[in-house]
Amino acid sequence: MTRTQITGGLVITAAEEMHADVLIDGGRVVAVAAPGTQSWTADRTIDASGKYVIPGGVDVHTHMELPFGGTFASDTFETGTRAAAWGGTTTIVDFAVQSVGHSLREGLDAWHAKADGQCAIDYGFHMIMSDVNESSLKEMDGLVAEGISSFKLFTAYPGVFFSDDGQILRAMQQAEHNGGLVMMHAENGLAIDVLVEQALARGERDPRYHGEVRKALLEAEATHRVIKLAQVAGAPVYVVHVSAQEAVAELARARGEGLPVFGETCPQYLFLSTDNLAEPDFEGAKYVCSTPLRPKEHQAALWRGLRTNDLQVVSTDHCPFCFTGQKDLGRGDFSKIPNGMPGVENRMDLLHQGVVEGRISRRRWIEIACATPARMFGLYGKKGTIAPGADADIVIYDPRAEQTLSAQTHHMNVDYSAYEGKRVMGRVETVLSRGELVITEREFTGRAGHGVYMPRGTCQYLD
Amino acid sequence: MTRTQITGGLVITAAEEMHADVLIDGGRVVAVAAPGTQSWTADRTIDASGKYVIPGGVDVHTHMELPFGGTFASDTFETGTRAAAWGGTTTIVDFAVQSVGHSLREGLDAWHAKADGQCAIDYGFHMIMSDVNESSLKEMDGLVAEGISSFKLFTAYPGVFFSDDGQILRAMQQAEHNGGLVMMHAENGLAIDVLVEQALARGERDPRYHGEVRKALLEAEATHRVIKLAQVAGAPVYVVHVSAQEAVAELARARGEGLPVFGETCPQYLFLSTDNLAEPDFEGAKYVCSTPLRPKEHQAALWRGLRTNDLQVVSTDHCPFCFTGQKDLGRGDFSKIPNGMPGVENRMDLLHQGVVEGRISRRRWIEIACATPARMFGLYGKKGTIAPGADADIVIYDPRAEQTLSAQTHHMNVDYSAYEGKRVMGRVETVLSRGELVITEREFTGRAGHGVYMPRGTCQYLD
Amino acid sequence: MTRTQITGGLVITAAEEMHADVLIDGGRVVAVAAPGTQSWTADRTIDASGKYVIPGGVDVHTHMELPFGGTFASDTFETGTRAAAWGGTTTIVDFAVQSVGHSLREGLDAWHAKADGQCAIDYGFHMIMSDVNESSLKEMDGLVAEGISSFKLFTAYPGVFFSDDGQILRAMQQAEHNGGLVMMHAENGLAIDVLVEQALARGERDPRYHGEVRKALLEAEATHRVIKLAQVAGAPVYVVHVSAQEAVAELARARGEGLPVFGETCPQYLFLSTDNLAEPDFEGAKYVCSTPLRPKEHQAALWRGLRTNDLQVVSTDHCPFCFTGQKDLGRGDFSKIPNGMPGVENRMDLLHQGVVEGRISRRRWIEIACATPARMFGLYGKKGTIAPGADADIVIYDPRAEQTLSAQTHHMNVDYSAYEGKRVMGRVETVLSRGELVITEREFTGRAGHGVYMPRGTCQYLD
Amino acid sequence: MTRTQITGGLVITAAEEMHADVLIDGGRVVAVAAPGTQSWTADRTIDASGKYVIPGGVDVHTHMELPFGGTFASDTFETGTRAAAWGGTTTIVDFAVQSVGHSLREGLDAWHAKADGQCAIDYGFHMIMSDVNESSLKEMDGLVAEGISSFKLFTAYPGVFFSDDGQILRAMQQAEHNGGLVMMHAENGLAIDVLVEQALARGERDPRYHGEVRKALLEAEATHRVIKLAQVAGAPVYVVHVSAQEAVAELARARGEGLPVFGETCPQYLFLSTDNLAEPDFEGAKYVCSTPLRPKEHQAALWRGLRTNDLQVVSTDHCPFCFTGQKDLGRGDFSKIPNGMPGVENRMDLLHQGVVEGRISRRRWIEIACATPARMFGLYGKKGTIAPGADADIVIYDPRAEQTLSAQTHHMNVDYSAYEGKRVMGRVETVLSRGELVITEREFTGRAGHGVYMPRGTCQYLD
Repeated sequence: MTRTQITGGLVITAAEEMHADVLIDGGRVVAVAAPGTQSWTADRTIDASGKYVIPGGVDVHTHMELPFGGTFASDTFETGTRAAAWGGTTTIVDFAVQSVGHSLREGLDAWHAKADGQCAIDYGFHMIMSDVNESSLKEMDGLVAEGISSFKLFTAYPGVFFSDDGQILRAMQQAEHNGGLVMMHAENGLAIDVLVEQALARGERDPRYHGEVRKALLEAEATHRVIKLAQVAGAPVYVVHVSAQEAVAELARARGEGLPVFGETCPQYLFLSTDNLAEPDFEGAKYVCSTPLRPKEHQAALWRGLRTNDLQVVSTDHCPFCFTGQKDLGRGDFSKIPNGMPGVENRMDLLHQGVVEGRISRRRWIEIACATPARMFGLYGKKGTIAPGADADIVIYDPRAEQTLSAQTHHMNVDYSAYEGKRVMGRVETVLSRGELVITEREFTGRAGHGVYMPRGTCQYLD
Repeated sequence: MTRTQITGGLVITAAEEMHADVLIDGGRVVAVAAPGTQSWTADRTIDASGKYVIPGGVDVHTHMELPFGGTFASDTFETGTRAAAWGGTTTIVDFAVQSVGHSLREGLDAWHAKADGQCAIDYGFHMIMSDVNESSLKEMDGLVAEGISSFKLFTAYPGVFFSDDGQILRAMQQAEHNGGLVMMHAENGLAIDVLVEQALARGERDPRYHGEVRKALLEAEATHRVIKLAQVAGAPVYVVHVSAQEAVAELARARGEGLPVFGETCPQYLFLSTDNLAEPDFEGAKYVCSTPLRPKEHQAALWRGLRTNDLQVVSTDHCPFCFTGQKDLGRGDFSKIPNGMPGVENRMDLLHQGVVEGRISRRRWIEIACATPARMFGLYGKKGTIAPGADADIVIYDPRAEQTLSAQTHHMNVDYSAYEGKRVMGRVETVLSRGELVITEREFTGRAGHGVYMPRGTCQYLD
Repeated sequence: MTRTQITGGLVITAAEEMHADVLIDGGRVVAVAAPGTQSWTADRTIDASGKYVIPGGVDVHTHMELPFGGTFASDTFETGTRAAAWGGTTTIVDFAVQSVGHSLREGLDAWHAKADGQCAIDYGFHMIMSDVNESSLKEMDGLVAEGISSFKLFTAYPGVFFSDDGQILRAMQQAEHNGGLVMMHAENGLAIDVLVEQALARGERDPRYHGEVRKALLEAEATHRVIKLAQVAGAPVYVVHVSAQEAVAELARARGEGLPVFGETCPQYLFLSTDNLAEPDFEGAKYVCSTPLRPKEHQAALWRGLRTNDLQVVSTDHCPFCFTGQKDLGRGDFSKIPNGMPGVENRMDLLHQGVVEGRISRRRWIEIACATPARMFGLYGKKGTIAPGADADIVIYDPRAEQTLSAQTHHMNVDYSAYEGKRVMGRVETVLSRGELVITEREFTGRAGHGVYMPRGTCQYLD
Repeated sequence: MTRTQITGGLVITAAEEMHADVLIDGGRVVAVAAPGTQSWTADRTIDASGKYVIPGGVDVHTHMELPFGGTFASDTFETGTRAAAWGGTTTIVDFAVQSVGHSLREGLDAWHAKADGQCAIDYGFHMIMSDVNESSLKEMDGLVAEGISSFKLFTAYPGVFFSDDGQILRAMQQAEHNGGLVMMHAENGLAIDVLVEQALARGERDPRYHGEVRKALLEAEATHRVIKLAQVAGAPVYVVHVSAQEAVAELARARGEGLPVFGETCPQYLFLSTDNLAEPDFEGAKYVCSTPLRPKEHQAALWRGLRTNDLQVVSTDHCPFCFTGQKDLGRGDFSKIPNGMPGVENRMDLLHQGVVEGRISRRRWIEIACATPARMFGLYGKKGTIAPGADADIVIYDPRAEQTLSAQTHHMNVDYSAYEGKRVMGRVETVLSRGELVITEREFTGRAGHGVYMPRGTCQYLD
């Protein structure tokens, strides 16, 4: 295997900023040294002078090829992981889906089949539980043992993914027992369905009504509820895609009491708003996802939550549907618009823009995008940092390059960008995955199949 | 009709304490005057010197003859309202029950039939909705118009009274529209049923496990949830039988935000605790009710809530089952013990004991037991105060008499007292209902059928 | 003495709204009766048909003839109490002032001399303590015994009224011992003086800077501080003229914990804002008072505090200085503008306007303007309600009359109105003080000297 | 300079746990490498197999030779820093003291003179401001420029260190301007002095009354106050030696709002309590420090604060006075007991005991004891971590060694241990300061004068 050194850069991890050289061997980091102090021999030298040397991003919430509302998310594991690499992300954790009436195993097998041999970067799986029963509860233990250590349940989507509070409690109890982590989509779906039906009956059919019926209060309510259920189970809980300030407040309240309660948000909630959902000519459909975008003033609360660590992780919930041919399934009925947005390629850059704008520090950028997601889902040590022994998943990032986000230039398999025309400072230049060059000075040099499945340990963020 | 004057007493209302004479004519109070200043002619003079002259109690939560778990609450409207009168209560609001698959009207008719001609004191009805659907939602409007202005729903008892969050939201929306008030039994019944099943599987079968599975956190959760649903509906909400300090905290939080959120507690939560549930030889079954009794330390939080007005009402949730022949249906399986306790006769005395012990003021006693319940449920003006124009529902209360609560001496049709042997200061001496003597110097002088059905207006506490 | 009956009106107290006739004899209310049920003989009948019959207002915060900044408040006890009567207020509690180096007694004697024989309505005194020391602490006990049961201290105005935290604690301890109630002007005066000096040094000299330097956070800080000192002393505390929403939040937090903490606000904080302070041509000086007016958004928090009972009292802090000749002492230096505004005549009307606009109920209007101030300061029973035995301080209020507030028509001895041109619904028609007509169908029929000094009992709001 | 490698240990920093070798050259860490992967040449190899390799501790709150109450803290810079080294601490930041009427410079010079050439480890200075005035405010800027970037003020000790709120605000404004960080001793000293005088007057003279008069509420009050003053100044604030759970709550509340507010606690508050203060025969005097020890239940709140990051730093407030000859100045009058306790040698071990007992993780141990204190006070990069470029201040820590804390074996110059007889797991084995062996396998191999003065940058924790 190639022995590589990266010299002259500013190495940034969640904890340190240090001018240092990095030596890679056997796909792993073997040494970090003060610049020029070591006379290493290396097959390859990457000059990172003037650049950041950062851990590859870890995106713990993606949905490649997800079936939803009669169609499929438009990125395959091949196209989606390639786009991820372009964006400086070197690990994804996607969601295998149990269908009602089927076992977890069947769902997991299906997702393994989709991903196997396709990925440009490493990947793992969470398991979506759509059918909590005696049998699927028992299956959880085995899955944890084989590296599927997190399970997502929904208080939303009655009739599809929805679990009732008894089922959620049971799954949490099982996770408490086997070390798994329950992830919750927290919106009161039963109440939302009532509001959807009433809105449609009133003739409110445009995309913006998607945002109006999925009320912030109903996200906050469900967030509070799953926290209490977790407290009864004695288990931690991780709330996905938090978008409402009222939901952040619930997390903050619980964390203030010392409860093991975690929250993730996504770039779309930090940078977009209901203004986008209200774009005319059905353009708002591009921004339909659940939890929905919120009024602009929620953004400040989310950024503050990231600073106060009431939110710990930023993932993408990447789940793209083309505007033409997919999103338009919901013309005339917002409830039929496939829920989801592209973003796996944009996350590292958008969060760096948060650094540029003074919202978070550089180290916090790495913490919320690399280190904590890895730690939360049992990948730390290998992923999320640059340290001796860790996988050499490393990004050379140019903080001074400017770029314009656009569907014209992005690599995701979707016909629009949610950030079309947005100018940001900073750009991924080179990406290594386990020491191999995947992106080399903004050229894709990786390959489908380089990425391997990563069995995960249990949550390391509780230590 | 008899013209009566009550002289020489200390008239206490929610707002005033005044030495005053009261003149009653035509069943109503016609004048209140400084002692001895008026030369009224009266057919009857009641000398209240050294006594309190207070409004008759208004108990807005009773369940006479309620079918539950294959048996019936042991007090009929006749025996129950007579016992209420003995205890200084002159109005009850009982719950008519809709059965699943039936209309509200059928339930209401059945309860009218039970009560008609039986009652010693006046009575009204709330409506329990067990089956929220298009048809029953429409019926609500008519019921409000005819004086049934409050509707109780349950997040507990799946398969029996339980409504899901969508149904609750719909009912609240309808109430917002028609002026009705939704009352909620707030416990997460789906989660509790899981815990019940697990407890029984572990062989935990004694009455005390009833208290352990119905966790305070699950009361708090449901309380928070119904508050949020009410907020979405733009409607007020009244939470019945609050027992957990965590639930009080949720009410306090919402009220601090200015939301129209109300809470009731009951004497059993103020005076009894899980220590009672743990009494040996199945005696704990006497104290099985839902929400359950809590550990002793919750009592202080409830009293504080009554002082800070985070709780507004004390009712009884009177629902007696005899220890022999009824409660013992649950020997060997706590989940089969009929839920409910006697108390309609004890409420005014127990709350006066709170006055004696310095927990609340005399005026607050009248406010939480008479004035606010009347106002909350559209009876004020007629009930809950002593003022010109009001119904002459008046109690002569001797604050210095001592008594011992006991099944030997009480008048409720149940074979035990939850407060057996408890000594309290204060005792009802004489009770008038619309000017008629129902209790005369501790002798029952009323009759079944004196009490009439009271159609109620909408909530007056929101003004 | 004249025997008077008031017939046909809607009698409103803090607790009741009732169509009732009121009989007055010997200066007191002797009976309240259902309309037309009594054949009283009376020397005088006041027909209140279509009007409200309400208790006379109790304004517990006035400063007649107060020396401040080298001048005197422009209303004497004669002119000020006459204006109060015009505005439906029948009792004031003014502040006697201890000067540094002098005894409480000297201050009290001086204020008695100012008021004696001058007043159109009844009056009492609080005592301002400017010099807390062993001797003045001892004097407190005697003052409580003779009816001066409340003591005001300041965290503001260093060098004038300011007491340090040790002095405040001592006074609170003494009050805890003798039953007195400590009232606090809560602003961090030491910090404010720094900001004043810096603002002046920057050339910020207009009235609006008065509002900028006296920051809301510094009111909140001092509010929190005096609450904690009171908690250490085991004493209640009453915070005067609360204007900042952050201060309301501190009161709410403490009250939520069950602490005996009370707050008063004033009409100027409910209806005026920093917009007024910014009026050009030195007009802003008319609105200079301390605590200062706040940005408009604080008004909603104050109204909410009045609804949630986190604020219990509305007084005026009436302390008028003429625009010409007094306020202009501060031209070119906002810190020299005499602090204070007129308002004793406007309070009842402005709060009724809050009723008209749906912010508070009619009963709450009477509670915050009459009943609670009386109860808070030991006057209840005599003042603040209409009930047999109470002083016949009664206002006939026409809720449908419209009026325009203006210096042209007001009766306060000051050359401007803070509400010039404001149109409000409702107007005082007739006012009785202890059964004597002071205002008769909008004509002044009272006299200087009718009003007598009212020794007060201790706080009745703690019961 | 000696080139040293440390091999085979588990390197623990605030962010990482990695089996790694560490290479030291020129007093600095030059490389960290996967074990055995590098063929370094080194003059000296330290085998750390089975041990932890951790950054040297950073104790940012010590008082060597502090004059207090007529005596001096018993550790000189020589004895104190030697003891620190024994305990695994390689940097202290002590407090230079301005006396009233003197300049900051004079105080700083005096402290430089005390420390110069005496220290076994590196040291820096904060500046205590006892006399805030125009002149000393101006001096602050210069001191920041030369590496004294933090300033401690007191709301306690009137007449000695006390600053009033105006002075505190001014100092905070100046710090906001020059980048300095204001540290606050937050107790309401004016109120405490009243309580002290009253306690003594009641004959309460034993050490335990020290804890009773310095009430938790008065710590919480002052904490809230300095937070608000900082908010007005737009400056961060660091509260020293937080001991009361109510004070933690104030910090948590402010941090929840996103304010730059920081808190430090000390081992004595985590492990000792008022039970110690109540030890008979004047033994309680050993535990007299301010803020005082609190009842045991506060400990859990402090540990939780450390977990939730509402508290960021654990320092010692090391300020020893011998029981014989110093503490006994206060026999018969607790207020005369010199305030302070020894602890600089015990901190790292006691916090490791927190790890052993499951209260914090290993990484959090390093974060609160090394990384964050360094970052908070502008030393990070050099101190507080093990990374290429950092000073080689490194401790080899044996997590499995057991020891008993005792005055018999400790190296602090004081005749008692606050933890006498306490058994703990874990022990410092070897300590390097800038690559030099100061403790070598539990033998002191350092020297007075090795330690150098460290000018500090401004706070790095705000980034």
